[in-house]
Amino acid sequence: MRAPAGPRPRGPPPAQRTQPPARATAPPRRMRSPPGARSDAPSIPHAVTPATAPAVVRVDLGARSYPISIGAGVLDDLASYAGHVGKRALIVTNDVVGPLYLERVTAALKSAGVAVDSVTLPDGEAHKDLATLNLIFDAALAGRHGRDTTLVALGGGVVGDMAGFAAAAYQRGVPFVQVPTTLMAAVDSSVGGKTGVNHHAGKNMIGAFHQPNAVICDVAALDTLPDRELASGLSEVVKYGLIRDAPLFDWLEAGGAAAILARDRAALTHAIRESCVNKAAVVAADEREGGVRATLNLGHTFGHAVETAQGYGTFLHGEAVSVGTAMAADLSCRLGWIDAGVRDRAVGLLRACRLPVTVPSGMTPTQFRDLMAVDKKVQDGVVRLVLLKGPLGGCVVTGDYDPAALDATLGAFCGRK
Amino acid sequence: MRAPAGPRPRGPPPAQRTQPPARATAPPRRMRSPPGARSDAPSIPHAVTPATAPAVVRVDLGARSYPISIGAGVLDDLASYAGHVGKRALIVTNDVVGPLYLERVTAALKSAGVAVDSVTLPDGEAHKDLATLNLIFDAALAGRHGRDTTLVALGGGVVGDMAGFAAAAYQRGVPFVQVPTTLMAAVDSSVGGKTGVNHHAGKNMIGAFHQPNAVICDVAALDTLPDRELASGLSEVVKYGLIRDAPLFDWLEAGGAAAILARDRAALTHAIRESCVNKAAVVAADEREGGVRATLNLGHTFGHAVETAQGYGTFLHGEAVSVGTAMAADLSCRLGWIDAGVRDRAVGLLRACRLPVTVPSGMTPTQFRDLMAVDKKVQDGVVRLVLLKGPLGGCVVTGDYDPAALDATLGAFCGRK
Repeated sequence: MRAPAGPRPRGPPPAQRTQPPARATAPPRRMRSPPGARSDAPSIPHAVTPATAPAVVRVDLGARSYPISIGAGVLDDLASYAGHVGKRALIVTNDVVGPLYLERVTAALKSAGVAVDSVTLPDGEAHKDLATLNLIFDAALAGRHGRDTTLVALGGGVVGDMAGFAAAAYQRGVPFVQVPTTLMAAVDSSVGGKTGVNHHAGKNMIGAFHQPNAVICDVAALDTLPDRELASGLSEVVKYGLIRDAPLFDWLEAGGAAAILARDRAALTHAIRESCVNKAAVVAADEREGGVRATLNLGHTFGHAVETAQGYGTFLHGEAVSVGTAMAADLSCRLGWIDAGVRDRAVGLLRACRLPVTVPSGMTPTQFRDLMAVDKKVQDGVVRLVLLKGPLGGCVVTGDYDPAALDATLGAFCGRK
Repeated sequence: MRAPAGPRPRGPPPAQRTQPPARATAPPRRMRSPPGARSDAPSIPHAVTPATAPAVVRVDLGARSYPISIGAGVLDDLASYAGHVGKRALIVTNDVVGPLYLERVTAALKSAGVAVDSVTLPDGEAHKDLATLNLIFDAALAGRHGRDTTLVALGGGVVGDMAGFAAAAYQRGVPFVQVPTTLMAAVDSSVGGKTGVNHHAGKNMIGAFHQPNAVICDVAALDTLPDRELASGLSEVVKYGLIRDAPLFDWLEAGGAAAILARDRAALTHAIRESCVNKAAVVAADEREGGVRATLNLGHTFGHAVETAQGYGTFLHGEAVSVGTAMAADLSCRLGWIDAGVRDRAVGLLRACRLPVTVPSGMTPTQFRDLMAVDKKVQDGVVRLVLLKGPLGGCVVTGDYDPAALDATLGAFCGRK
């Protein structure tokens, strides 16, 4: 399957796309500079999103469409929740994010007339399991929440995935709202309706497609995000660049990534918005991953193997994806599908994002093969992979690759300690 | 909300509807005898379904439509599975049903070219929880089942609900097939896509709507069903009679129920087919219980409170529903919505089915209220109930009833030891 990626026609000039009001439609159809023309990459935009006017990216899914509101302070703004939360809400958060933001979200919802309960989960990927999920059901039932309640996910990807799956399953389905507080959640996991928990034998093996009513992304909340978590989220921004948005990759390379690591809020806002525009376009085209949506898993098949092998939480998700992306780039290059320059740019940008690009000590090719064999993209026993192809910004999802090249990639990465 | 039930226009005469070939459409539009005319009720049909030609009832849900095949021997017939199971299957059964039928279903699937694994769960409602559900995921991952596998639920309602929910959640959704081996599963739980597990605070509180690809109902498999389980299933057949099918109620009263308890296979087949026709019509009209589907919960709000209070598995589901149906009939009569004759016929038929119609010792009105407060039909804090109204065969789902009448019903049933 060839993904509809690669170079796209020119659109509005950079200045136009960085000014409010934000675009209300999802598909990105613009290019700031030709692929590879790094010196022409636009400078980092500033003052992209005034606090008074959040950018809104819409996910077009018919009756299940919803807005992503991106801006500083949207978390406290009752207008963010209006129309998306009913009379009752159960906020799901964790013991790191809760102390920082639970009171504020509760206050915003209460001022909107919502009766609010909350449940605080232990933080971290290690707790993304059925047992922790049940804490949400415990709280919902203890509070006598009915089908008319709304779950509010306040936290990063783990909280969002778990609260979303709890919403999908509680009384066979209640609505939910995402309030991402990590870059990872803001640019990727809060959008698109993939929810679920891990199984000890595989990442995200238990879950549901369940779209949120709204995504409320407060860039100011990223101020409290540890550096390591910030870098982890960047791996997914790099991903959009590699699979379908060369201009975004160029921008990251040309200083965008450095500005984000320096916590430049305008750069963060820009990266989140561009990522959401990319994700919304892909999800709108293929909600349940029958085709192009699988391209969003660049690096994930290798990465999930790393996460599962190391024990959930040892690697942050984005760190594992970074390792996996480096491996996918390596394999793509060995197959002759990209040139060494693209591979080196990919690995170089990940390094510049302070992300790991080598396999942890002790992992073997056999271990990779065993763990990759349960990947959700396996078909008829063949592990399909997202691989880069053509100029920067193009990729394919395929099981039709030379297995010797995969052997070589696994051997090289597992030997390189 | 008034359910579209009550007396319906005359349809084909009895002889026509009990002969093969089976009707392929769902909505029942016929009446064998006017309500109340018990002496005119048709005699028990015989030789309804020759072994060579299973009756097929279709559930019309657009792209999610599926057939219910009802007959003796369909479990062994590879034609039953053709087109509904892919190259791989994971049979989910329990430690009572497995020894009886697992080998046969495995053989049928293998002869159809399917690679088969199986997982055997502990039997009983007490095990219908997230921990037992995880055994299915363990087996699926151990066997490296991908998104192209099909789960096959071989057993009663508990196995069907759990396998169905596992299918909804495994890798965010794989297909499944129901092979019911209890009367309860055959007439009710295997049809309609309600899946899930219990929470200690409430029945079926965690789950999904996930329709099967097919329901394969082997009436010969009911030969091994204990008498108590047979009676339990009858409670749901009585339910269809009370809420929308007076002729079915008449037939049960006039000897149908006795024939089923005597294990007359033609009577069983007739009851299953008529029940499935009723259920298919309701589900086709309202898949996700936005309206009329809630009528299928007659007796269930009271009944779930009994099941939860007594500990799952103490009462069989149908036994608890029988108690709840007697309570709903009592309340309906106190409200003046049905006359005492209808109430007495309902309770009398349940007794004739050897089902309990009194509340277990020790339960209090307060306990009922607390447990009923988490019912899935609660809206804005009001417990909506399915209550009988008008002549036999009519019902409503409403929160608009005199609370004093509910007090009286709870008082009468909890005082009556």
